[in-house]
Amino acid sequence: MHHDSPAPPERMARVRVIIHELDIDALLLLDMNNIRYLTGFTGSDGALVIGENEETLLVDGRYTNQARKEVEGCHVSEYKEKIDGIAAILLDGSLTSVGFESQAMNVNTYLNLKEKLGGLTLNPLSNEIAALRAVKDEKEIAHIRRAAEISCEALTAVRDLIKPGVRETDIAIELDFQMRRRGAEQVSFPTIVASGANSAQPHAQPGLRAIKNGDMVIIDYGAVHCGYHSDETCTFAVGYKDKKQEEAYSLVKTAHDRALEAVKAGIPCVEIDRIARECIEIGKLGKYFTHGTGHGVGLDVHEAPRITSNSEMILEAGMVLTVEPGVYIPDLWGVRIEDMILVKGEGCEVLTRVSKNFTVLQ
Amino acid sequence: MHHDSPAPPERMARVRVIIHELDIDALLLLDMNNIRYLTGFTGSDGALVIGENEETLLVDGRYTNQARKEVEGCHVSEYKEKIDGIAAILLDGSLTSVGFESQAMNVNTYLNLKEKLGGLTLNPLSNEIAALRAVKDEKEIAHIRRAAEISCEALTAVRDLIKPGVRETDIAIELDFQMRRRGAEQVSFPTIVASGANSAQPHAQPGLRAIKNGDMVIIDYGAVHCGYHSDETCTFAVGYKDKKQEEAYSLVKTAHDRALEAVKAGIPCVEIDRIARECIEIGKLGKYFTHGTGHGVGLDVHEAPRITSNSEMILEAGMVLTVEPGVYIPDLWGVRIEDMILVKGEGCEVLTRVSKNFTVLQ
Repeated sequence: MHHDSPAPPERMARVRVIIHELDIDALLLLDMNNIRYLTGFTGSDGALVIGENEETLLVDGRYTNQARKEVEGCHVSEYKEKIDGIAAILLDGSLTSVGFESQAMNVNTYLNLKEKLGGLTLNPLSNEIAALRAVKDEKEIAHIRRAAEISCEALTAVRDLIKPGVRETDIAIELDFQMRRRGAEQVSFPTIVASGANSAQPHAQPGLRAIKNGDMVIIDYGAVHCGYHSDETCTFAVGYKDKKQEEAYSLVKTAHDRALEAVKAGIPCVEIDRIARECIEIGKLGKYFTHGTGHGVGLDVHEAPRITSNSEMILEAGMVLTVEPGVYIPDLWGVRIEDMILVKGEGCEVLTRVSKNFTVLQ
Repeated sequence: MHHDSPAPPERMARVRVIIHELDIDALLLLDMNNIRYLTGFTGSDGALVIGENEETLLVDGRYTNQARKEVEGCHVSEYKEKIDGIAAILLDGSLTSVGFESQAMNVNTYLNLKEKLGGLTLNPLSNEIAALRAVKDEKEIAHIRRAAEISCEALTAVRDLIKPGVRETDIAIELDFQMRRRGAEQVSFPTIVASGANSAQPHAQPGLRAIKNGDMVIIDYGAVHCGYHSDETCTFAVGYKDKKQEEAYSLVKTAHDRALEAVKAGIPCVEIDRIARECIEIGKLGKYFTHGTGHGVGLDVHEAPRITSNSEMILEAGMVLTVEPGVYIPDLWGVRIEDMILVKGEGCEVLTRVSKNFTVLQ
């Protein structure tokens, strides 16, 4: 249910190209989703050393049996102490330089490891490995598609709860339960149900506030299927109160639609962000759009590419990403509209299924 | 429901003692639970700079309003780009050396920040700040106690599900739902329900396997209340099959009880680990006890002190920790018995409430 191991061997072949291009002798990986992507290992701790001709997956005693079952074509080595275990493997080969993911290693590990490795050089990589994961293969897309179906079905099942008198937390708990009952192994992240003034906080946690007539209710949620995430946000109006809410919704929806229309292989990510942002600026709410337009989704709920004003990536067919413009009027209310899409050669396919038309729940 | 802000000011006073002792000018904190502990801010991203006389909480646009509501006596500063924001604050004071949590900063941030800071020295700290959190105050203990009550009530509510034919995942989903219905804002970690041969994997994920007669079923679970975690593991026998299972249970229970009896202020953590380990070694199952004996619990489910063979900490009154010996017979079954306890001047109080006597569910 939770994994399809082992990983396709062509992924490791692409890593060897990176090793060659960077002119290093080996790679040390610590990011558990990168390790899962390359080996199929689904444990929560470990390290992967990729040498010129062989790979070693290092795990602690909790995971030795599981690792041997999940991975193929990769030596499994058990360590007592992680940094010592990594150092032993690296010193065992006749290596002079080893690349590592600089965002996945903490400074404590780095300084300790450096000391143990003597003359061996540690070369910080930036996003080379994460970038490998940006374009999904068919199996990955199937997992993400299923995750999005599960989450949509679950939201449909709890929709009747979104009404005056029901507390945010009760909706979140029921939504999470419904996602898991439909096969989600986890939820993608702590579900957001933010009503009234809480909806003006983009990352509000669901609380004991009961929904009231006139509220905007933002629900940001997702399901995990076989390790792959979905991510979607719906904003509902409960009762109807303020013309400004509908106007803001309409503006955010236009930004969302324009951005989606622009998506296709070959377009820079910054361009998608620019289109969404410009729409909202023209509508005079630019200063209330306080976050990026979107992000890639896969084994991590936030991964490459980032759809922001300083992203350097270009969209490619097979990328899965969110488009999620929003505006947040402090202390009053907010609107966010988020779909998760699959980039195609021409255009895109929307994977998240809940209607994004302005909806007033009575 | 989810936080009690702001944090007690004496915590910041203890940090200033550390700054003084380490002979540095300021501290840069990135660990979000350390930041929560010191300021009351509950957001998921940010940084805290503690200077000689003032503190600055740095957050991105998503969290500015929330931060201003949650913290007191601390300047809130919004950044567009995190490393630039941190560098600007640090360069603004006339500082020469800044301490930072070396386990909470990744190498990418470290190298970028170093470059931007010019002559300013970054001093890696080890566990000084985390160690501050090891001894809990009364309010923290009340939160942890409540988390343990919630989880116990939830397990009691789902106990009838632990029987032949019910799938691991269905028990996990129902248990999580029951914890949250009782007020858990989250579960402490992905709940483990491991039956049959799966119970031989200490960190198995619940799957589609249905429980069978003769299984050992390990349930490792916890609730979060006001940011504070609980952690407890029960192992049940379903039906009765193998005398060896009961013997192993009895051995692990003895190790657990002996360790608990030894707990009091002044005892080194290594001693608690040694006592549990020795029991299991005498019973000839030592090689199947493949993990540490326990860990502190608080804002993180794993925090100081570690109860392992290389821990350097001494137990103090007010620490909250787990004692969780286990044995795992590969491909057959496992047993783990975990209680969470509050260390007292003499002895300890067990906070987790489910009976740990050998229980056969029919």
